[in-house]
Amino acid sequence: MVFDMFFRRQPFKSGYSVFAGLEPLIKAIMALRFTDEDIKYLRKLKLFKKEFLQYLRKFKFTGDIYAFEEGELVFPNEPLIRIHSNIMEAQLLESFLLNVINFQTLIATKTARIIEASKGRNILEFGLRRAQGIDGALSAARAAFIGGASATSNTAAGQRFNIPVKGTMAHSWIMAFNCELEAFKKYAELYPENTTLLVDTYDTLKKGVPIAIKVLKELKKQGIKKYGIRLDSGDLEYLSKQARKMLDKAGLKEAKIVVSNELNEYIIEQLINKDAPIDFFGVGTHLVTAQGDPSLTGVYKLVARRENKTYIPSIKVSDNPEKITNPDIKNIARLYNSKFMIGDLIFLEKEKRNIVKKTSLKEPLTFYHPEYDYKSLKIDKYHRSRILLKNIVKNGKLKYKFPSLQEIQKRTQKHLKTLDPSFKRLLNPHLYKVSNTKKLRDIKLDMIKKWGQAP
Amino acid sequence: MVFDMFFRRQPFKSGYSVFAGLEPLIKAIMALRFTDEDIKYLRKLKLFKKEFLQYLRKFKFTGDIYAFEEGELVFPNEPLIRIHSNIMEAQLLESFLLNVINFQTLIATKTARIIEASKGRNILEFGLRRAQGIDGALSAARAAFIGGASATSNTAAGQRFNIPVKGTMAHSWIMAFNCELEAFKKYAELYPENTTLLVDTYDTLKKGVPIAIKVLKELKKQGIKKYGIRLDSGDLEYLSKQARKMLDKAGLKEAKIVVSNELNEYIIEQLINKDAPIDFFGVGTHLVTAQGDPSLTGVYKLVARRENKTYIPSIKVSDNPEKITNPDIKNIARLYNSKFMIGDLIFLEKEKRNIVKKTSLKEPLTFYHPEYDYKSLKIDKYHRSRILLKNIVKNGKLKYKFPSLQEIQKRTQKHLKTLDPSFKRLLNPHLYKVSNTKKLRDIKLDMIKKWGQAP
Repeated sequence: MVFDMFFRRQPFKSGYSVFAGLEPLIKAIMALRFTDEDIKYLRKLKLFKKEFLQYLRKFKFTGDIYAFEEGELVFPNEPLIRIHSNIMEAQLLESFLLNVINFQTLIATKTARIIEASKGRNILEFGLRRAQGIDGALSAARAAFIGGASATSNTAAGQRFNIPVKGTMAHSWIMAFNCELEAFKKYAELYPENTTLLVDTYDTLKKGVPIAIKVLKELKKQGIKKYGIRLDSGDLEYLSKQARKMLDKAGLKEAKIVVSNELNEYIIEQLINKDAPIDFFGVGTHLVTAQGDPSLTGVYKLVARRENKTYIPSIKVSDNPEKITNPDIKNIARLYNSKFMIGDLIFLEKEKRNIVKKTSLKEPLTFYHPEYDYKSLKIDKYHRSRILLKNIVKNGKLKYKFPSLQEIQKRTQKHLKTLDPSFKRLLNPHLYKVSNTKKLRDIKLDMIKKWGQAP
Repeated sequence: MVFDMFFRRQPFKSGYSVFAGLEPLIKAIMALRFTDEDIKYLRKLKLFKKEFLQYLRKFKFTGDIYAFEEGELVFPNEPLIRIHSNIMEAQLLESFLLNVINFQTLIATKTARIIEASKGRNILEFGLRRAQGIDGALSAARAAFIGGASATSNTAAGQRFNIPVKGTMAHSWIMAFNCELEAFKKYAELYPENTTLLVDTYDTLKKGVPIAIKVLKELKKQGIKKYGIRLDSGDLEYLSKQARKMLDKAGLKEAKIVVSNELNEYIIEQLINKDAPIDFFGVGTHLVTAQGDPSLTGVYKLVARRENKTYIPSIKVSDNPEKITNPDIKNIARLYNSKFMIGDLIFLEKEKRNIVKKTSLKEPLTFYHPEYDYKSLKIDKYHRSRILLKNIVKNGKLKYKFPSLQEIQKRTQKHLKTLDPSFKRLLNPHLYKVSNTKKLRDIKLDMIKKWGQAP
């Protein structure tokens, strides 16, 4: 059997998504076993035959996995992961696979949008306290880093994934002292190299900032060069501009301004457009819960069945036209001009020789509009192409070397540079061209006709 | 030090929330230790003093915890959890505590709203594949059960939390066979006691339902009494009404109809209002990701500091008025008339003797409006009262027997029955009265005055 994992529409009305979650997924698949305790529980449910439970006892994944690499840009209806295995193995993976890829891809995408909105400023992921569960926080920290976040406030995520950790002081730190001055002084004494003073506990401009300036000047005298303040409430544009003036006037031009408080990509874009002098954005809730679209619509569908050593394509027709699946065994070619991506072509693996490694074509490629396929476009030359699904696992054995998260982050940035800015607008981005080849389109239309009547 | 966990506004513009997450939180707090590996990682960060790392090596929680019981109804600004401990212990718990309580309370609340919309029909939690990470799925299954879900499709959650598990067939099951009839027959043969046939793979009314009827009639002949069909796409009102007619005409009045497909409380309320003959709702994505409001706004704030054996109240003033905290050590009394809850009074623990166990009062209680406290209301009698924060942990020792999830689910239902239906409307519910006592209000106003100027 062959199964595809794909999603149906971009989250947040985004022009692109960033694929993430592969390494934890693959590692979990390779390690998947059923313990005696698991089998005992399943037996107790009185749902399953003895033969099935015996099968589970010896279960391990023996199939093949093809997938995008983490940090790649992905689009609706492209197979992100393709599994070849017997149906039992393929089905046992389904829910877990969707859970991991849907969530991490969603958060990497949200983060990339936030970075884009900030025009490349530093984004600190501050979401632990509001994330959807413990793994909601840990996996979000990993995916946010892939999407471009500089650091996380989640120390456990830092430890687990080797991500830089950053934090600032809490309001309770200040409230635990008799006055702000005492609280700031003590903090600067303990963390001289990491002093970011939270200035909004009582009155930001009348107390917080002036008192912080006293303490930062002391640090400056000691030769320390990195410090700053954090604003966590009020009008962030006004307060950051006023605070910047006060800091500059006090000779603290190098002091950084960090802001936080229910930020998202739209608020950040607006602050940047208004020239708010902000160096770091701490983004929590809206980043880790993917506010606006808290789930990616990824699904996992049978696309081909093996019978007598040949593969027969499968399709799901459905009463919702957008739920009709793309049949058969597919891969994706991404075409580039000298600077940017120009389109993705979903082709049948059996067509591969006709598609790849050609930079100019005898016959032009037809690109059908992703939603309205009576519209199409001819492409007759391109500068280079890449085949996107890589073989990750073969006969149950790992064939792929996982890159470090730092490498993946760099790749994400590299791929985003090849995407024309019109696809990166937060609102109403340009629609990126993803098309089935003519052959795939013909097979699909034939099957819809057939399964609309029989059997 | 004394810290309160509370939230600032109801999620989903709901009239109430359902408190959840206490048992996993408390168990994790009691078990919290730092391993050698943890300490090694923290040392490597070069942020912390040796003394602090030595302290962590011996860390265990030694303080007191007061909290609502799971399944209680909760409202903005009420302390849901109160921690008494040294500041180190209280701060080490903060992020984890917020993560667990914010998420589980959010999902229990979302589920209670869905149950309310369904007028008490069976809700099956189907969210694993779209949840925010693995724990996003597991914790959501637990919280959904507290909120009133009948079962989960997440077998691991069933095993871990002793929740009933329920599922139906997948589209891929059907697509793996040559035709629907063969697929349905085989399923009925394997799961005769759990046959719910998915009828929308090709054409719901022309193929799916008629073929399902053939197979269900066979089951009926064998004396089996529980079976049904599932609709997963298309117009669910139309299709459920048509399918019901077809099933009834075939003599299968007892066959149940399950529906799924991106359901939420608003769609379910509408289906019920249109008399769609639906017995079970499978709710996935929107339930487990709390669509519409994917995070509860819970925070954790210092409310009193211990100095020389007395407690000094603390306040955070903030530039956002709604972020001003309620100082000092508090509890909540919930007052009832003979049938319903009439209001919650947040009182200082030191006022306790004046508040509780009185059903008629010499002096009437003043209830201030939660948002506009120039408005107030006198209450001079009530039928009964309950004090809501219970002592869960004392000096680091557990003082509380955790009820089973089944008991908690029953309690939720019981408490919801004491809430007037006007508070349970999905849109624009009535605002439930939560007031500070006059004494607490006076302390707070005094402190705002003081901290608005000094120190």
